[in-house]
Amino acid sequence: MLMLFLRNAMPLWIAFMIVFSSSSFASEHSSKHKAAHKGERESGHFTPDIKFSKETQACIACHSQVSPGIVKDWLSSRHSKITPTDALKKPAIERRISTVNPPENISQYAVGCFECHSQNPEKHQDNFEHMGYRINVVVSPSDCRTCHPTETEQYVKSKMGNAYRNIMKNPVYHTLVNTIDGRKIIENGKIIIQDASYETLHETCLGCHGTKVEVRGMKKVSTGSTFGDVAVPDLSNWPSQGVGRENPDGSIGACTSCHPRHSFSIETARKPYTCGQCHLDPDTPAFNVYKESKHGNIYDTKEFEWNFSNVPWVIGTDITAPTCATCHNSLLVSPGGNVIAERTHDFGERLWVRLFGLIYSHPQPKSGDTSIIINKDNMPMPATFTGELASDFLINQTEQDSRYNKMKNVCKSCHSSNYIYGHFKKLDNTIKETDEMTLSATKLMVEAWDKGIENRKNPFDEQIEKLWIRQWLFYSNSVRYASAMTGAHDYAAFKNGWWELSDNLQKMRDLIETKELSKKKIVEHAKDH
Amino acid sequence: MLMLFLRNAMPLWIAFMIVFSSSSFASEHSSKHKAAHKGERESGHFTPDIKFSKETQACIACHSQVSPGIVKDWLSSRHSKITPTDALKKPAIERRISTVNPPENISQYAVGCFECHSQNPEKHQDNFEHMGYRINVVVSPSDCRTCHPTETEQYVKSKMGNAYRNIMKNPVYHTLVNTIDGRKIIENGKIIIQDASYETLHETCLGCHGTKVEVRGMKKVSTGSTFGDVAVPDLSNWPSQGVGRENPDGSIGACTSCHPRHSFSIETARKPYTCGQCHLDPDTPAFNVYKESKHGNIYDTKEFEWNFSNVPWVIGTDITAPTCATCHNSLLVSPGGNVIAERTHDFGERLWVRLFGLIYSHPQPKSGDTSIIINKDNMPMPATFTGELASDFLINQTEQDSRYNKMKNVCKSCHSSNYIYGHFKKLDNTIKETDEMTLSATKLMVEAWDKGIENRKNPFDEQIEKLWIRQWLFYSNSVRYASAMTGAHDYAAFKNGWWELSDNLQKMRDLIETKELSKKKIVEHAKDH
Amino acid sequence: MLMLFLRNAMPLWIAFMIVFSSSSFASEHSSKHKAAHKGERESGHFTPDIKFSKETQACIACHSQVSPGIVKDWLSSRHSKITPTDALKKPAIERRISTVNPPENISQYAVGCFECHSQNPEKHQDNFEHMGYRINVVVSPSDCRTCHPTETEQYVKSKMGNAYRNIMKNPVYHTLVNTIDGRKIIENGKIIIQDASYETLHETCLGCHGTKVEVRGMKKVSTGSTFGDVAVPDLSNWPSQGVGRENPDGSIGACTSCHPRHSFSIETARKPYTCGQCHLDPDTPAFNVYKESKHGNIYDTKEFEWNFSNVPWVIGTDITAPTCATCHNSLLVSPGGNVIAERTHDFGERLWVRLFGLIYSHPQPKSGDTSIIINKDNMPMPATFTGELASDFLINQTEQDSRYNKMKNVCKSCHSSNYIYGHFKKLDNTIKETDEMTLSATKLMVEAWDKGIENRKNPFDEQIEKLWIRQWLFYSNSVRYASAMTGAHDYAAFKNGWWELSDNLQKMRDLIETKELSKKKIVEHAKDH
Repeated sequence: MLMLFLRNAMPLWIAFMIVFSSSSFASEHSSKHKAAHKGERESGHFTPDIKFSKETQACIACHSQVSPGIVKDWLSSRHSKITPTDALKKPAIERRISTVNPPENISQYAVGCFECHSQNPEKHQDNFEHMGYRINVVVSPSDCRTCHPTETEQYVKSKMGNAYRNIMKNPVYHTLVNTIDGRKIIENGKIIIQDASYETLHETCLGCHGTKVEVRGMKKVSTGSTFGDVAVPDLSNWPSQGVGRENPDGSIGACTSCHPRHSFSIETARKPYTCGQCHLDPDTPAFNVYKESKHGNIYDTKEFEWNFSNVPWVIGTDITAPTCATCHNSLLVSPGGNVIAERTHDFGERLWVRLFGLIYSHPQPKSGDTSIIINKDNMPMPATFTGELASDFLINQTEQDSRYNKMKNVCKSCHSSNYIYGHFKKLDNTIKETDEMTLSATKLMVEAWDKGIENRKNPFDEQIEKLWIRQWLFYSNSVRYASAMTGAHDYAAFKNGWWELSDNLQKMRDLIETKELSKKKIVEHAKDH
Repeated sequence: MLMLFLRNAMPLWIAFMIVFSSSSFASEHSSKHKAAHKGERESGHFTPDIKFSKETQACIACHSQVSPGIVKDWLSSRHSKITPTDALKKPAIERRISTVNPPENISQYAVGCFECHSQNPEKHQDNFEHMGYRINVVVSPSDCRTCHPTETEQYVKSKMGNAYRNIMKNPVYHTLVNTIDGRKIIENGKIIIQDASYETLHETCLGCHGTKVEVRGMKKVSTGSTFGDVAVPDLSNWPSQGVGRENPDGSIGACTSCHPRHSFSIETARKPYTCGQCHLDPDTPAFNVYKESKHGNIYDTKEFEWNFSNVPWVIGTDITAPTCATCHNSLLVSPGGNVIAERTHDFGERLWVRLFGLIYSHPQPKSGDTSIIINKDNMPMPATFTGELASDFLINQTEQDSRYNKMKNVCKSCHSSNYIYGHFKKLDNTIKETDEMTLSATKLMVEAWDKGIENRKNPFDEQIEKLWIRQWLFYSNSVRYASAMTGAHDYAAFKNGWWELSDNLQKMRDLIETKELSKKKIVEHAKDH
Repeated sequence: MLMLFLRNAMPLWIAFMIVFSSSSFASEHSSKHKAAHKGERESGHFTPDIKFSKETQACIACHSQVSPGIVKDWLSSRHSKITPTDALKKPAIERRISTVNPPENISQYAVGCFECHSQNPEKHQDNFEHMGYRINVVVSPSDCRTCHPTETEQYVKSKMGNAYRNIMKNPVYHTLVNTIDGRKIIENGKIIIQDASYETLHETCLGCHGTKVEVRGMKKVSTGSTFGDVAVPDLSNWPSQGVGRENPDGSIGACTSCHPRHSFSIETARKPYTCGQCHLDPDTPAFNVYKESKHGNIYDTKEFEWNFSNVPWVIGTDITAPTCATCHNSLLVSPGGNVIAERTHDFGERLWVRLFGLIYSHPQPKSGDTSIIINKDNMPMPATFTGELASDFLINQTEQDSRYNKMKNVCKSCHSSNYIYGHFKKLDNTIKETDEMTLSATKLMVEAWDKGIENRKNPFDEQIEKLWIRQWLFYSNSVRYASAMTGAHDYAAFKNGWWELSDNLQKMRDLIETKELSKKKIVEHAKDH
């Protein structure tokens, strides 16, 4: 059998022939790597004459034919160039791994296919026998934890790690999601909303939040090569790279959301395009306003001159303006080597206020699992309709101050205290005023409910309600994001900002009157006939 | 006379003095070229000591003064660095030309000004005498065919090559175009729609689809130089680079749409910005959703490290994520040299379904000339209002499967069969559901027609009709594009996606009621008085 | 005292130790600079063994600890690498300074912290004693004038230099701004518009136009370092980098708008991202349409190969397609060294028509201070509601022709006269038709006023009025911008173009009818009861 052959019989030199001859995988790439990255100094840090484990060699032997892009991508990664043992020889502040005890069986090899896809097999529903090896299809944060425990622990307790359950286990958000994404059919002229299909949730909300990936059994697939058909686990809701993915080993999260596919690149994660996959207009326009900001302007102009691979990241030397990662999670030092900010994979750790209004902005929640929040109206939301906070579930002033100081410390790398003070004072006012604009919209919606023009049973499905959603979810949020990120003035003025906040209230007002008239008219008609 | 002087008397050394002295055109550039492109290995392929034809030298002699940017652009191109004869010396798979018999009179020279602007003079209405030479203003695909016959033949039968006639010869689309682009004047409070001016069509639809370029006669223009005034053909609807341009030699198409101006660069055509000139939101947001997708994220992060000039294009080595050209038309090989996909300039060749709904998505049309389609309601469209397909004009299941397999083969370079299966299964569901959302909107519009609230004579000019257009042209299309391209989740959820699909139905429903009331009221008023 | 120590006692070698040891500021950077910029030839132009003034050394001594990013940014600038004396040794056409007599006390040093932050102290409200030196917080155009007098003079008389007063001193625009940006509260169901807070104006309009920066007194701030607390001027409306900023020395303008922060980079100003901070959709979508245009496509593809630092800028050699700066203000020469366009910092100098409709497009105003304009309806606007021009305040045909020729000369670097003629003829038609579409919207709004449906007192606050604003401010402008910049066809057709121009008129028409009915109904109700 082929798999036995692969496991036992194929001499190493044959595997190497396949991989490194005609395609000259490694050599070509490594020379390219030097030129491309300005990371020349890094090459000294890589393991010379690195060894791939016997199992990984077997993976490569076939997959350099069957899916060569994956193999090439991995060969471009640090994982293929350094062993855990050598990674630990760097000074602590320069390390990219947080374990101090990598398992002995992998510590002397490159971090290859088998090293990652074979972790914790007993937990993996998706573990299967493949060409003589036990393989997991999905590599989860619990597997990455082997070498990156600190990052995993920070991540799984963050809002991002909990993104799936936060949307699916909260009945209010779940209703919103179903109302938007559910198919609508017309019956006797009426719009009938059906529950959203999981596929459509996957295409929309769960594309970013993550899906629940489960094993439905085994299936045969064609490799399209001489290897013929192979049996593989049949995964539901796959492919999926949303940040809060529920994995077939019971863990949550997807590291590939930001370190995509097999290059696991810190450079990719540090560039704003990664965050820009999800943090987009109209609801969370972080990437949009960044691009229009002074920081974004400098990034776009200078990115080719910057160093995105250095650890720790040196402000002023490696970069001269921040990307998303700079402010929110990277380990930063000054040119003199002083730590400006510690690395964190809890992306809320430097945030005191949550600009993303639900429906008002509020202090960051204490727990990344926000489905546990209950407000005074008994709703699972951080504020009531009138803006009263569910303070028991939100961080207190001391914690807010601490986080504010962490962020301010980043700003101070390049800005004076007075400059920073002025910036955030303006943000405080913006938060206050946009929350007021949300409250004004809420009052108009309540008027529509009270007058029986629309009904409060599902607060998301009628037209005045939809205008109300726009007010807080699109426009108030947008103005706050623009304000926080050194300004995206046209965005805050016209694009999705004050122009819309004001226009929207006027539309709600006029629509109440039009619908009221329709209603009266219909009532009168009913009386007349 | 100057032209005689240029033709007969100017010694070559004078021409060369003008071109290569003070401005040192060629030398400076070629050294620059090496550094910029990562294309060092290419230099070996260029013709050493290349010769420019006598005619091209004469062109350059003046035009390096009159329009130096054009000359410089050409000097940066491959056309200036290799002769057709030398281009043919490469192995077939590495060739950028598809002829095997270039005409003898051009085969030993660089592909210069005169070589391109003098082809097929007898067919060119725009051929004129210029400084002693017969020159065509417009270089058409029929001229490029001299060296690139396969590309031209594929292109002229594609939907893209037929883009002008497909929009202008189809009465339904022509009505839509006129309704959108026609000037509206107010007379007695009524909106009067006038036919769109050709200039405005040129600024909008025909900017991408192409204009009809004809010669209206000759005119004198000032060169603004010592050369004084010159007589040139007076071209209508020019400049024009739309993909389906109708040329003054009777041919269709414009190669410069994607290989712009005089550098004719494969790099430009392979980068997504080129497609992003036309394939944009809100109607065809391919570029928008690509940028938000995982593929787009990797492209934006890594493009500086990739090789956009290699032929064939090596997956994994030259690029580690696809651009538009990768999936849709480039010649691709594996690192081991196996062909993954053949080059095509019929951009539908790897597409089985047409996501672009008219008004429903449908199998790709058999012919690039879609003006020949007639559906069961006798309308020149691929589906009826209720979604019944004009199957006789659309490819059958076998052809769909064949094209699907071509595309899947590209995906398999980097993804497992199971991964690809999951991806396209989700797309199938998205197509089904978005078509249903279009049908729901159609039902509401028909209700409005049946009730006499709006009239079906022109189905594009009234407000409920315009909401209906948004449903299929903007929102259903957007969700499908997002789904096809590995996800642009925020786009599919909020930006132009399910949020709008649902909101839009609600707006149609409410507007029907408001307008119905207005109508009744007006009728009642009429009765009362 | 620390400041005395810094001023008098710290030996130079200590300062240098701090700056150049552990962080090795200068050496590392300059080597990096060479690699990054393709500006190798420039290095010969820099001052070898450049000296920093004693005062600047003192600044750096602390600030390389307190705000290292600023110091590093400056070290990357030309200011740190060349003295004014050496800058003057270049041929006039290559100079980046326009003075011929730099003050003696700064001419032999790098242009450092103190050189810029100590100019004209007697005029600066924000001058204060800091560590033994008199420092201005804000560096204004009047300070930059020391070395760059021509640029400053051009700038302060431009519309951009006057951007603050043009919006704040014009009662019509001020009303518009207040209506959009003012908080709206609901009282008894009515929307009450309050005056906009200055903070919100700062976040929106004044973010681009500039704020008025004044000194409110002194305040203590923590440096967060061993230097403890320091007293600094308390500035209002700060930070602020809008183009028409009113400075604490009484001057107008902010050079950092386009040459940001301490690198003062010509490269940044020449790339389109800088203009793209403010010239954005929906009102002034210059950056948006550029990105979709052929020029933008070529820029995005080729920017890595271009030279953005060369002075003068050589068309065809340094760049092969224009950025915003190329057409609007840079000093351009041909590869042969002929001047194509002179440098200008009056960004209207090559513009004959103002595409930005107020409310119709019109010839450029004579003065950059547009608050002096009065039209025939006695309103401070360049045209009346029906489109009659305030010609006394606008440039005449001769001046228009002269500016048109300046621009055409830029185009001719790469395009034939006939090509350019065709392009601008299409623009002329677009201007005419979009102004007509604006007039149609105006007529409908006047109908609504005449019928008492909305009231003309504030022409910006009701729903039909807001649709009217969209017509000229968003859609007519967008189509004109797209037309001017070699085409952004999808933008002009669908995005914010003709689709919206037409849809919007229909919405206005329907809304007039709906509101008229509501009004009548209410009147009838009143009569009945």
